[in-house]
Amino acid sequence: MLITPSIAAHSATLPLAPLAIARRAVGPQDVQIDIEFCGICHTDLHVAKNDWGRSVYPIVPGHEIVGRVRAVGAQVTRFAPGQAVAVGCFVGSCGTCSSCADHMEQYCLSGYTLTYGSPSADPGGYTQGGYSKSIVVGQDFVLSLPDGLDPASAAPLLCAGITSYSPLRHWGIGPGMTVGVIGLGGLGHMGIKLAHAMGAKTVMITTSPGKAADAMRLGANEVLISTDEEAMLVMANQFDFLLNTIPVPHDFNAYMSLLKVDGTMCIVGAIGPNAQLNTRPMILGRRNIAGSLVGGIRETQEMLNFCAAHGIVSDIELIKAADINQAYERMQKNDVKYRFVIDMASLV
Amino acid sequence: MLITPSIAAHSATLPLAPLAIARRAVGPQDVQIDIEFCGICHTDLHVAKNDWGRSVYPIVPGHEIVGRVRAVGAQVTRFAPGQAVAVGCFVGSCGTCSSCADHMEQYCLSGYTLTYGSPSADPGGYTQGGYSKSIVVGQDFVLSLPDGLDPASAAPLLCAGITSYSPLRHWGIGPGMTVGVIGLGGLGHMGIKLAHAMGAKTVMITTSPGKAADAMRLGANEVLISTDEEAMLVMANQFDFLLNTIPVPHDFNAYMSLLKVDGTMCIVGAIGPNAQLNTRPMILGRRNIAGSLVGGIRETQEMLNFCAAHGIVSDIELIKAADINQAYERMQKNDVKYRFVIDMASLV
Repeated sequence: MLITPSIAAHSATLPLAPLAIARRAVGPQDVQIDIEFCGICHTDLHVAKNDWGRSVYPIVPGHEIVGRVRAVGAQVTRFAPGQAVAVGCFVGSCGTCSSCADHMEQYCLSGYTLTYGSPSADPGGYTQGGYSKSIVVGQDFVLSLPDGLDPASAAPLLCAGITSYSPLRHWGIGPGMTVGVIGLGGLGHMGIKLAHAMGAKTVMITTSPGKAADAMRLGANEVLISTDEEAMLVMANQFDFLLNTIPVPHDFNAYMSLLKVDGTMCIVGAIGPNAQLNTRPMILGRRNIAGSLVGGIRETQEMLNFCAAHGIVSDIELIKAADINQAYERMQKNDVKYRFVIDMASLV
Repeated sequence: MLITPSIAAHSATLPLAPLAIARRAVGPQDVQIDIEFCGICHTDLHVAKNDWGRSVYPIVPGHEIVGRVRAVGAQVTRFAPGQAVAVGCFVGSCGTCSSCADHMEQYCLSGYTLTYGSPSADPGGYTQGGYSKSIVVGQDFVLSLPDGLDPASAAPLLCAGITSYSPLRHWGIGPGMTVGVIGLGGLGHMGIKLAHAMGAKTVMITTSPGKAADAMRLGANEVLISTDEEAMLVMANQFDFLLNTIPVPHDFNAYMSLLKVDGTMCIVGAIGPNAQLNTRPMILGRRNIAGSLVGGIRETQEMLNFCAAHGIVSDIELIKAADINQAYERMQKNDVKYRFVIDMASLV
């Protein structure tokens, strides 16, 4: 068993603080990783604050993990000490259901094991995440970090990146298609970069004209201000796909008329009760609303390789471990472009 | 110009009454049809009562039309006098947009011409529907009624039938799949017959245990009572497709967990504002909600041929023209199994 410095929430009241967390001993299938960088996802904030009522303290958040292999178990074949690796949102699944058989562990019918906060055989009875110097993960849930990706800026690919990549791939985005990315935050800025790299005409859809310049810098071909009714009418029936990254409940119905017949708006941000559904634009154009959750392990590796091939990483603000609480406060005000990443070397 | 006896609503206050309605002269591309039977759709009731605020009186409802060709224009090649034909929900579209080019006139980007109530060059300035002895329709919007279909029972295929058939076909329903049909009315009873005939395991989903026997008679393999929470849990993740035919706003979220990963619930009944959308089951299983509107002309002909090949018609209650107001009253109480059809020979 390893005792490792981590940053944990002790109760529903912030702040986070350093804590020595026990990690399991390295089993035959396990990879022990020295964590170098960990991105900060909005989920971390929700869980630290127990917004969803399911947090068990102490809890170490973090599921955008990049580091290097320190040690491997006897049966580990795909990883070796010193190798650059990454870990995302989950570290286990049943391995036998139809979803797992189809490499969609994120939709495991028996329920996946989250990187932090899931019941497990680990010390303390729960998995603990990446705001830490070290983690032990089964090899099937460890990803290889390709050469050429800046490790700090790559960390958010493990959640924000794959959450945008998976639906874009699933709905076959490519040249000749028009994709709208709704909302410009951690997810949205990755959505623009990825849709652009896949060859689609990429349109940033936002209520904030002030975000236009940044959206164009990130790869958007156009910016559509969703409060401009005339502009929205001009763009009706123009979109093959909409990636809706808005993280809070909102009236999504106005976006539906932007879709072509058979187009889909995929919601990846706001989970839970949302606005009232208006079926009129759906029925009148056979339009679809869908949801999507991160991506499977194989697809996450594909995404990392795609990002390496296209030189795509997240725009980040690198912080020291001691600044985590200030980062949380700024996140609550959406004051980050576009992802905080913790430099774990600063944690002692 | 033809003056023909019809049944029209004169104002927002029912009842309907006989009226002489002018039809346009038979142009070179036109087919004049002696109407034998016309089904009664809930839309007729909404329009007669001006529920949607767009009705212009007098108005002759009816878009489930079956009859025989009386005369054809000089350039009509596909129809001849005496031929059994049918007309559905629309009688015109732009013919040039991407939807029309794809044989999806129901999604015409310039707006189709409805069989009744649409502005047109017809006498009176609006199209008038099938509660009438006669109608004149351009040949591109006339369907051939295959041999072997009882004409009265076939009339509802033109709306209730195609509205169920089109989404089942679009989402590729066939053997090895499990389809749930939600709601047992005019649409739902056709959905069961069609999904069954396409080879899918067909499950009737209803709040009413009293509808189980009839559902099984119509072709359902099973009945799922949606208020039975335990039964709903047992059937979670079991359905490839749900055809939601409930005609009024309702909480549709509970059905979503019945879908497999990547499954779709298609709403064909309730158009307009509906319940609050809960994205949780959509995100956690990449599940979809879609809408669908009747079907294109080519697909409607395909549906009629499919029904003839499989011996499928609607369960109907044939009424005389004089009984129309009583039928409307019973429809408002859902007291019909499953579609009223007017015998136009009774209209004088």
